[in-house]
Amino acid sequence: MTPVPPHLGILGGGQLAQMLSLAALPLGARVTVLEPDAQAPARLCAAHLHAPYTDRAGLEALAACDAVTLEFENVPGEALSALEGRVPVRPGRALLERSKHRAREKQALQAAGARTAPFVAIETGADLDGALGQVGGRGLLKTSELGYDGKGQARVSDEDGLRAAWQQMGRVPCVLEGLIDFEREVSLAVARGPGGRVAFGPLIENVHRDGILRTSVCLEGDPHEAQAREIAGRVTAAWDLEGLMTLEFFQLADGELLVNEVAPRVHNSGHLTQDGGGVSQFEAQVRAVLGLPLADWRPLLPCAMVNIIGVKDQEADWAGIDALAGTHLHLYHKGWRAGRKLGHVNLVAPDAATLRERLARLERLIP
Amino acid sequence: MTPVPPHLGILGGGQLAQMLSLAALPLGARVTVLEPDAQAPARLCAAHLHAPYTDRAGLEALAACDAVTLEFENVPGEALSALEGRVPVRPGRALLERSKHRAREKQALQAAGARTAPFVAIETGADLDGALGQVGGRGLLKTSELGYDGKGQARVSDEDGLRAAWQQMGRVPCVLEGLIDFEREVSLAVARGPGGRVAFGPLIENVHRDGILRTSVCLEGDPHEAQAREIAGRVTAAWDLEGLMTLEFFQLADGELLVNEVAPRVHNSGHLTQDGGGVSQFEAQVRAVLGLPLADWRPLLPCAMVNIIGVKDQEADWAGIDALAGTHLHLYHKGWRAGRKLGHVNLVAPDAATLRERLARLERLIP
Repeated sequence: MTPVPPHLGILGGGQLAQMLSLAALPLGARVTVLEPDAQAPARLCAAHLHAPYTDRAGLEALAACDAVTLEFENVPGEALSALEGRVPVRPGRALLERSKHRAREKQALQAAGARTAPFVAIETGADLDGALGQVGGRGLLKTSELGYDGKGQARVSDEDGLRAAWQQMGRVPCVLEGLIDFEREVSLAVARGPGGRVAFGPLIENVHRDGILRTSVCLEGDPHEAQAREIAGRVTAAWDLEGLMTLEFFQLADGELLVNEVAPRVHNSGHLTQDGGGVSQFEAQVRAVLGLPLADWRPLLPCAMVNIIGVKDQEADWAGIDALAGTHLHLYHKGWRAGRKLGHVNLVAPDAATLRERLARLERLIP
Repeated sequence: MTPVPPHLGILGGGQLAQMLSLAALPLGARVTVLEPDAQAPARLCAAHLHAPYTDRAGLEALAACDAVTLEFENVPGEALSALEGRVPVRPGRALLERSKHRAREKQALQAAGARTAPFVAIETGADLDGALGQVGGRGLLKTSELGYDGKGQARVSDEDGLRAAWQQMGRVPCVLEGLIDFEREVSLAVARGPGGRVAFGPLIENVHRDGILRTSVCLEGDPHEAQAREIAGRVTAAWDLEGLMTLEFFQLADGELLVNEVAPRVHNSGHLTQDGGGVSQFEAQVRAVLGLPLADWRPLLPCAMVNIIGVKDQEADWAGIDALAGTHLHLYHKGWRAGRKLGHVNLVAPDAATLRERLARLERLIP
């Protein structure tokens, strides 16, 4: 029907793949996801290959797509090898190898000219000697791989605590990050097409609770957006991104932005772009991966998002949420589990003051 | 996961059912459509019962849903009988029997206090005598049932032409409508929950080409919105609507609105609500049918829509459409056919002047 590559493959079938599929469908693209979970949220709006990420037949099916993207960075290298050279995988292996490994990621960020918190890569016990001093005496020990939402992290403030924490993490490769005193946490995503054309998303302010994102807010005219775009543009060019990448920043008291983490994909903090009157982060990733034109995609309206985390039916005022002006409910069709992301509520308003006032009411409706 | 009735049934699986399903999913609802076409657009994001609308097993499956709605008014009465009393069908049979029959519809509109064009119901040849005179000498002969997008219509300006046209239509029940000189065509949709709570959509200006909607525009502060809401509110209350209803109006030179047609469902003219920063007509119908709270749902941004009708790949500048700021492509995954609605492009802008300017450029990109 259009020159759009009609068939998009996605590694992973969770809520991010679900929302990528919901965005891809109206663009004329069919979507196939490879996902071992039988109850994967994406199954409701995409063809679901119910198999491990390394399943030969599943990977053959993805290799037959016009392009393949992903919803998580920890894709087995084996899966990438099976696809490489047969179908464009966006983002590609080199970028993923970097962003799935905290130490390599920080080294590559610094090489690209982006500032990060001070850190020491911990490979062996010897690396622990004096490491705390190098990062300022207080730090966060994080496993180099597979950590997310605050999992696989420990706060340490002395040598013994550091050694005990590393012991407890099974002496796996880690990074020790210096603890940063920051004013706020912000994020920004950038989509980059195969041709290298860059399209920026908005600067978003994020508030975490127990290490998990709780609330995001996007207002026009944030004075730090230009700096975030400059850093994001430099990193994505140096890393030759194809697809979409989200950067999380610490904003220091002096206004400088340090890169905290990078996700080579849509990110929870960008969900508010679904309902702000612009192109969503999901459509932006799909367009970049399929090589479709895309201009900067900041929302036209002030918008916000509140996560629904481990909330049981009776705990939230669902009718109240629907009744509140400007709300957009997004549920993932996942079963309840403590601390599990089950959905989010986007909020829009004609102006920033109204958004703030509605957001305060919305936050009272969601535990 | 929420108290939302989780399972919505839809009679029909075309693009309207597809977009209803895309709107229902994030609300936490599963969707099942009953649709005889194997290639139905809704199959991509809903469970597809591939069977005739009167299929016993298919209707049993719909009867097991929490609520049933529809994407077209010509549902066989047999199907409605099989569902009645077993599952809420919204809108219900009485309203559908009215809105699927032009003569009954106009009588019911007038009974509800809404003005229409003058008309004469043609049941037998005798009804033709002097009918043209009663509607002002020039008229449109329309079949009472199954006409849409200008099909089943003939312009007549004399007795012989009228008789010939009726002959050609197979002497089926028809209405002869007086030709109206109107300033413009507008539409407005209203959602009404089981409790009778009404939520209005925006007033939309529509431009047709060859009897098919080509372009819709929605700007804030239309001076005729209040009148349209007043009429829509009166009709939906009198007809005891449950679900969503769209009214199409002729606006006369003196500003008065005559009701042209009524659709008991989402309507092509309301597609622009998908991307205007508010609740879409599709979400509005789903919320009303599932009994979820809903406030008025006019877009927060100036927005417009251009239909993609019988356009072949090479005939439209797809890259140009994606590259134009504020565009949102919506393709239905339907094969090409002359005059077939294959998709639409929504357009948003921060202000009305920018919208007009972008719309002029967009219309040049779509034949």
